[in-house]
Amino acid sequence: MRDSMSGLEYMRRVAAGDIEGAPMVRLLGMQMTEVAEGRVSITAEVRPEHENGLGIAHGGLAATLLDTALSCAVNTVMPAGSVFTTLEMKINYIRAIRRENSPLTCTGVVVHAGARTATAEGRIVDVNGKLYAHGTVTCIQFKEKP
Amino acid sequence: MRDSMSGLEYMRRVAAGDIEGAPMVRLLGMQMTEVAEGRVSITAEVRPEHENGLGIAHGGLAATLLDTALSCAVNTVMPAGSVFTTLEMKINYIRAIRRENSPLTCTGVVVHAGARTATAEGRIVDVNGKLYAHGTVTCIQFKEKP
Amino acid sequence: MRDSMSGLEYMRRVAAGDIEGAPMVRLLGMQMTEVAEGRVSITAEVRPEHENGLGIAHGGLAATLLDTALSCAVNTVMPAGSVFTTLEMKINYIRAIRRENSPLTCTGVVVHAGARTATAEGRIVDVNGKLYAHGTVTCIQFKEKP
Amino acid sequence: MRDSMSGLEYMRRVAAGDIEGAPMVRLLGMQMTEVAEGRVSITAEVRPEHENGLGIAHGGLAATLLDTALSCAVNTVMPAGSVFTTLEMKINYIRAIRRENSPLTCTGVVVHAGARTATAEGRIVDVNGKLYAHGTVTCIQFKEKP
Repeated sequence: MRDSMSGLEYMRRVAAGDIEGAPMVRLLGMQMTEVAEGRVSITAEVRPEHENGLGIAHGGLAATLLDTALSCAVNTVMPAGSVFTTLEMKINYIRAIRRENSPLTCTGVVVHAGARTATAEGRIVDVNGKLYAHGTVTCIQFKEKP
Repeated sequence: MRDSMSGLEYMRRVAAGDIEGAPMVRLLGMQMTEVAEGRVSITAEVRPEHENGLGIAHGGLAATLLDTALSCAVNTVMPAGSVFTTLEMKINYIRAIRRENSPLTCTGVVVHAGARTATAEGRIVDVNGKLYAHGTVTCIQFKEKP
Repeated sequence: MRDSMSGLEYMRRVAAGDIEGAPMVRLLGMQMTEVAEGRVSITAEVRPEHENGLGIAHGGLAATLLDTALSCAVNTVMPAGSVFTTLEMKINYIRAIRRENSPLTCTGVVVHAGARTATAEGRIVDVNGKLYAHGTVTCIQFKEKP
Repeated sequence: MRDSMSGLEYMRRVAAGDIEGAPMVRLLGMQMTEVAEGRVSITAEVRPEHENGLGIAHGGLAATLLDTALSCAVNTVMPAGSVFTTLEMKINYIRAIRRENSPLTCTGVVVHAGARTATAEGRIVDVNGKLYAHGTVTCIQFKEKP
């Protein structure tokens, strides 16, 4: 569908529930809660199955939240036919995430969108704006296997 | 249990199935397949529910695999009572990961283990050794909420 | 001097020229041009001796500018006796930097300041605000060799 | 010259002194001490002018050393006409670097070389192999301004 639809239109339809979200995002119970040009928010409830051996959320939960928000934000500024995927991601964990900190929201914002690569940054906060993690991604235009 | 057990002993028991793995790791179907001092391997099957909207594995899957292998590797060199958690992670995505590339294994190896922080690096490869992602983590001693 | 002076006071004196800047910063011709609580700007002229083999500024110039601005920003929120150094740095290069883009300014802003670690982010821009690089650092309390 | 010379040939001539090293590399007193396919070592003496305000080497010195070794390593596997520059760099600082730790050598090794991007990793060690910093770069094919 991204062949005939701009990234912004596509993400708006995902947020509206007209297009099903990515399987991994549904598996982890995440919701796209805000879409604007260059900006996407993803919200998650921390569940017992998201924990690591220490009784706090596994780092993979925040990493998935960050990658989703930031790569979707990058795609909101891309035209039909141009899909960007994550080339690399960097995340800083600031505080342990516990179930009682839910819901957490990651807002990703585009920093630079070029013809070949794009970067975005984002923060994961609770409803009071308290910071739990932050990071950046570099995205690159996706080339399908021929 | 990590209060009375070294990290190496703990990880060996997880790999042997005597201690249950972390909930997030079980949710994503990952297995600890190798444990040695300073080195841990985690293996995963890529399933339909791990995909993103492009029909390839979501970046969060590889990020979770990397974080798990590397932070477990760091903990294999830590004594009882000293647990390290991830302070920051950096991952490079080299190739799109598809179901037919399964199983994928991430082997994490300690680079430096200090008194306050430790670093590790790892690569995600298929059974032929083909590289899909690589990255590093910095871990820091975990302090429980008082 | 940082034993008896807060980081903010120290950085203000460096910016005022009362305390000599770091030797590496002087070698590369950089100037501290703004100091506030949690925020430091460093400005540099790109000179022929800063170039790499392609006739553009070497990546090390932007990396040094970023590390300086961000670690100084972190130290502006630290009390006397508590000095933070860089534990890790991540930089994204957005555009080639040429001499005619001078002067470039990197403004570093604290994202999180904790008891053991702190993070900051910054952007390198020209006088028109055009972006050339951006990145983050994690700092950790400096422990002198006993 | 890189239009008519492979990266490996070019780097070998730099190491042999037949082609002058990059101005920034000379400014900081660095030497290319090893060149092989996919592998480059750069050596540096730490001088008083490389220090920061704490009397240890500024983080920018290690960052410049890392960027140089890793981007040169990437270019040793590139044919004539294809020059790669650094898209992003990540460095972990393990120990404070002092003058008495000189000379330090950074050996960069290619991890992945693709058609559009390449990655490399490297470590900065002293003559005894003691580790001071390590990191990775992602490089991308350089496009000249039209």
